[in-house]
Amino acid sequence: MDHELDLTADGATLTAALTDIASVSGDEKPLADAIERVLSALPHLSVHRRGNTVLAQTGLGRKERVVLAGHIDTVPHADNFPSSFNSERSRLTGCGTTDMKSGVAVQLRLAAEMTAPARDVTYVFYECEEVAAEDNGLYLLSRSAPELLAADFAVLLEPTGGVVEGGCQGTLRASVTASGARAHTARSWMGRNAIHEAGAILDVLRAWQPRTPVVDGLRYHEGLNAVAIGGGVAGNVVPDSCVVTVNYRYAPDTSEAEAADYIRSLFAPWEVSMLDNAPGARPGLSEPVAAAFVAAVGGTPRAKLGWTDVARFAELGIPAVNYGPGIPELAHTPGEYVEVAAIADCENRLRAWLSA
Amino acid sequence: MDHELDLTADGATLTAALTDIASVSGDEKPLADAIERVLSALPHLSVHRRGNTVLAQTGLGRKERVVLAGHIDTVPHADNFPSSFNSERSRLTGCGTTDMKSGVAVQLRLAAEMTAPARDVTYVFYECEEVAAEDNGLYLLSRSAPELLAADFAVLLEPTGGVVEGGCQGTLRASVTASGARAHTARSWMGRNAIHEAGAILDVLRAWQPRTPVVDGLRYHEGLNAVAIGGGVAGNVVPDSCVVTVNYRYAPDTSEAEAADYIRSLFAPWEVSMLDNAPGARPGLSEPVAAAFVAAVGGTPRAKLGWTDVARFAELGIPAVNYGPGIPELAHTPGEYVEVAAIADCENRLRAWLSA
Repeated sequence: MDHELDLTADGATLTAALTDIASVSGDEKPLADAIERVLSALPHLSVHRRGNTVLAQTGLGRKERVVLAGHIDTVPHADNFPSSFNSERSRLTGCGTTDMKSGVAVQLRLAAEMTAPARDVTYVFYECEEVAAEDNGLYLLSRSAPELLAADFAVLLEPTGGVVEGGCQGTLRASVTASGARAHTARSWMGRNAIHEAGAILDVLRAWQPRTPVVDGLRYHEGLNAVAIGGGVAGNVVPDSCVVTVNYRYAPDTSEAEAADYIRSLFAPWEVSMLDNAPGARPGLSEPVAAAFVAAVGGTPRAKLGWTDVARFAELGIPAVNYGPGIPELAHTPGEYVEVAAIADCENRLRAWLSA
Repeated sequence: MDHELDLTADGATLTAALTDIASVSGDEKPLADAIERVLSALPHLSVHRRGNTVLAQTGLGRKERVVLAGHIDTVPHADNFPSSFNSERSRLTGCGTTDMKSGVAVQLRLAAEMTAPARDVTYVFYECEEVAAEDNGLYLLSRSAPELLAADFAVLLEPTGGVVEGGCQGTLRASVTASGARAHTARSWMGRNAIHEAGAILDVLRAWQPRTPVVDGLRYHEGLNAVAIGGGVAGNVVPDSCVVTVNYRYAPDTSEAEAADYIRSLFAPWEVSMLDNAPGARPGLSEPVAAAFVAAVGGTPRAKLGWTDVARFAELGIPAVNYGPGIPELAHTPGEYVEVAAIADCENRLRAWLSA
């Protein structure tokens, strides 16, 4: 089914429409199609597509070019699809409302309305942010067509509660494998139970204490979690393998390599395999172009705890910040929602900045 | 492909042929077809089939009828298929050699050769012993056609190392579920990690000490193992559920209900669901018909630790023992093998008993 988006609707109505086009990572095509179709109809934009990543640019020959970027995928639904407004229509609940279809709605509204912004703008709508780094649409674009991303400054509309968030933490996933020896469970003492052994891996996770370092004036907060566990051969067999997948969120004072070494040493008794590792970015708010944006939209910047693609822009040498209408604490929770007023507020502040 | 079995080959050669017809639980059809076909060609037997369970009976009007029973399924292969003899041809290695295609080979050899045994014999070859109790071919037969199983005594040719093993332990499977609350892993303190919580379930398993009670003169040995674990939502989500499947092997002084109560109390802090529960059987070697068999085949009886279908015969009021050529300690291990000499020895002792 082809979905039609109405970019003249207010930001909350548009957020609801975007939320109700399911786009769990890997299944973004229907939403990417709808975005490509609606933007291609606008004469002031040139539109490009790579996979399910859509990019639209003004070409006014302005002195500065800025990027407004957002991912269009969500985590799997958790009985929170489709979206619903509360009775006062002050709040929209549903999978992706906060992370980050409200931000995508703001991008689309500005893209349609700002036919002649004071700065040239590149709008990026990309796929697969919620899954492995190598599938990330912005990463793929930065490798296949970095010229399309060229800019002086970038804003990611990730959920920040309307506050400028600086930098981001790195994220690393690794598998930690406990080994054992198979045996019939009627004679379990002939084998070694790998799932029982994995209890010692979980002990490490349960005892772990997070660091909360201050980097360039902003306080970060690390995290280390099991995100998957699996083991078992048959209902009467002592299992010989149990795999725990861990996700380490590390502050931007730690490099990719240091984070990997730390995880290997923490789980030294077991076999550790790195699955993916995306470094963070220091906040960099002292850069003039970043400072100017902060001054324009107002508020006191804080540290971004989630990994976001500001790290990709950092790699490309483009200063970048997070600034969006969603509520970061609610991302990936079943009760995820966004405040309707925050969507319009974010849109208005960005419009003012782009017009000035 | 149709497999042809040669019942005039020696027991070891026949065991190898049976082993090389893959029959992991649920996929027994090719082997059941081969057994049905070869037995149907023998005029002294009447053959019945239910699903992938095959039954063959002599009908000589003898005073006594005995059952020789064995399951034809195996656990999943573990790089141990097909079978291979060692260079001296003293040992046959492969999935199912010990548990229990060597026993099935003895059944088939006796079925073909004993055209006029001193006792009428019912040979049972049944499916799905290695999986959930409700799929067990002997269980299904005991419900749908118990008259076919009517007998004065039963021998199960499960691996016992050529020693009579009395009774069997019960086996119970239950799922124990740790719950939590989802959150983004960048803010894991907003949620509760169910996999970390499952570490406390594994702590119970690691600290558990087995009972080794003496029942009717034989010493049993209990076991409690995690046989599966699973949890995880996505690579960046704090998971809200983790399920540990446990297998409790309990001595025959404990009833089905007592075993279930024990597991519920042991894991009281968590949600416990019973998956299946098959009670054990007391050894019962004081019954005259069991004592006569023990006297005929010789040796000192010991306790059967694995659950076997002697418990089904116990339910039908038929005294039953385990007696077979396989090596019980090797059942379900990747290095599973059977001693060639043990196959002929078991066959000879049973032939002598059936002839007397």
